[in-house]
Amino acid sequence: MQVAGRNYRSIWLDEDGWGVRIIDQTLLPHDFRVLRLETLEEACHAIASMQVRGAPLIGATAAYGMALALRGKLEDEWLEEASARLLATRPTAVNLRWALERARTRLKPLPQEERAAAAYALAAEISEEDVAINRSLGEQGLRLIQIAHDRKKRPEEPVRILTHCNAGWLATVDHGTALSPIFAAKRAGIPVEVWVDETRPRNQGASLTAWELGQEEIEHAVIADNTGGHLMQRGLVDLCITGTDRTTAGGDVCNKIGTYLKALAAYDNQVPFYVALPSPTIDWTLHDGAAIPIEERSAEEVSHIAGKLEDGRIASVGLLPAGSRAVNYAFDVTPARLVSALITERGIAPANREGLLGLFPEMREEAAEA
Amino acid sequence: MQVAGRNYRSIWLDEDGWGVRIIDQTLLPHDFRVLRLETLEEACHAIASMQVRGAPLIGATAAYGMALALRGKLEDEWLEEASARLLATRPTAVNLRWALERARTRLKPLPQEERAAAAYALAAEISEEDVAINRSLGEQGLRLIQIAHDRKKRPEEPVRILTHCNAGWLATVDHGTALSPIFAAKRAGIPVEVWVDETRPRNQGASLTAWELGQEEIEHAVIADNTGGHLMQRGLVDLCITGTDRTTAGGDVCNKIGTYLKALAAYDNQVPFYVALPSPTIDWTLHDGAAIPIEERSAEEVSHIAGKLEDGRIASVGLLPAGSRAVNYAFDVTPARLVSALITERGIAPANREGLLGLFPEMREEAAEA
Repeated sequence: MQVAGRNYRSIWLDEDGWGVRIIDQTLLPHDFRVLRLETLEEACHAIASMQVRGAPLIGATAAYGMALALRGKLEDEWLEEASARLLATRPTAVNLRWALERARTRLKPLPQEERAAAAYALAAEISEEDVAINRSLGEQGLRLIQIAHDRKKRPEEPVRILTHCNAGWLATVDHGTALSPIFAAKRAGIPVEVWVDETRPRNQGASLTAWELGQEEIEHAVIADNTGGHLMQRGLVDLCITGTDRTTAGGDVCNKIGTYLKALAAYDNQVPFYVALPSPTIDWTLHDGAAIPIEERSAEEVSHIAGKLEDGRIASVGLLPAGSRAVNYAFDVTPARLVSALITERGIAPANREGLLGLFPEMREEAAEA
Repeated sequence: MQVAGRNYRSIWLDEDGWGVRIIDQTLLPHDFRVLRLETLEEACHAIASMQVRGAPLIGATAAYGMALALRGKLEDEWLEEASARLLATRPTAVNLRWALERARTRLKPLPQEERAAAAYALAAEISEEDVAINRSLGEQGLRLIQIAHDRKKRPEEPVRILTHCNAGWLATVDHGTALSPIFAAKRAGIPVEVWVDETRPRNQGASLTAWELGQEEIEHAVIADNTGGHLMQRGLVDLCITGTDRTTAGGDVCNKIGTYLKALAAYDNQVPFYVALPSPTIDWTLHDGAAIPIEERSAEEVSHIAGKLEDGRIASVGLLPAGSRAVNYAFDVTPARLVSALITERGIAPANREGLLGLFPEMREEAAEA
């Protein structure tokens, strides 16, 4: 998507054909800086420190991390160790496990000298798949925005969409998940206005979603995470779309902390609540989202916040009284009963096992049951 | 309540008998500074800039503001103008209107030369009433905490209470509303642990509630506003208590933005959701909370946040990309159906007209009907 009028992806192979380029997302929206990853350690650090984040991009970065790891050492043990190190960076994202399993399955049977090239090829493949999936998911979700727009009295009235966190192109390789239908609506000429939850503690909404929408010249307003319920009560939201880090076979959605609260408000106000998901984020082995372990992150993400000082410098400020502690759960689980529909690359499904299997019938044997 | 081991109220008459002392709450938790108000303008500024905030404290400050106004000019027109200026500072708080109406009713019939002394006496009376009401409300709410504690398997297990914003002693003249039962529980030796919503955009939870609890040595942890639903899903919250800026005769609760979202989560998880209210915050003229106008405050409260730099200085940092705008609604309305009970100074009532009238039968004729 666009940055200052130029097309970017969130991860790409550098011109020399082996270094990996990423955008340092911890510096956005104040500073746009591209980094080069050259080692497994740098790839692990990029994921753990959230220079890259978002389930699909984490998967792609892990795949490139395997490629970087295999440039030097090629033994089976190293392949396993590299995979384990990457897996340990973020416990919740199912794409991480999925990408690494795919890498191990693909690379292990190969002669050692072929592994590095195959790993690069696989990372490129995973990236291209992600782009194609998200583009398709955007076209599917566009139908729902079109329906909301058709209900407007006048065609110039915008469809008002609430989103939480960042499930934009920065969270994927390109296009995004929750934002992909919004970008598609913009291309289709449907007027949209986006309510952007700032998404404390890391503020990915205020930092990344608002930045993406601004770069694409899409109308938006940032709101405190507390605000969405009120907006829905007063009829100011036509629909919600969020992403997901992991979706169970039963349609439960594990996404950024606070998603559940917005889903409750949407349900209470009969506002459609859609979740956009590329199929690799479906965890077919789980039915019940309550079983998903929830990552607890550093308390400092709550007790401090970074932003831009008047003089333009970026600084972190402390928010708590001396002696007070903070607790930081990164995700919550929205039960399927609160989700109006799941938007996937193959179409739109009710948030339940039969709905998902209707689109992915090949998973019937694998899919966990209640 | 305690500050560094010394007893304070949030507003008091200075030693000279005419200046009014307040704590500048915009500087907390980083700096504890006491201000002196000497004029109507200073009183208006203190309310509008939120140096004082919280419905009961706003009422008391308005009453003292009338007293300061009447030290010089005494005419009827000035009395009306002073009242109108104070009323315009914050549109939502019903106590403001209530305190000013009480002042006008009391002062207007008096000879002009008696008005100033009567205004000071009334401000003191309103303050003392508030203290008595909140102390009593704390004893009433303590019963609910006691019940939750009685259900624990072991007496050392704490009752885990979630609160939103600051309804502590800083929001009142003393004791607080939502926190008053918690302070009472601490005095009664019941172990409590408080989940403190940081309460963006102004962060009164992280700044004020956490500070009050720390000064009283009560266990607490600050959480992002997004977190409460997850905590309730995982059984980590025994009950919620919030304050309210305005409660309708039908039991709808207008409180800090985000309260509604927590009430939805409590309802969804069968966690009791209590609202503590001194009876002056009841707006008997309204039944339906949806009719309450919601204050929209400066977008800068969302786009910027103040905190402490590493070097100890307080600074404000910008959070948004250049060109993105923010929207800032200050309150929302929690429908009575989501409120388990109302805690008042006269007892605990179901959140509906009959429940409130059971405790305040003298209001039957005034109370609006559905």
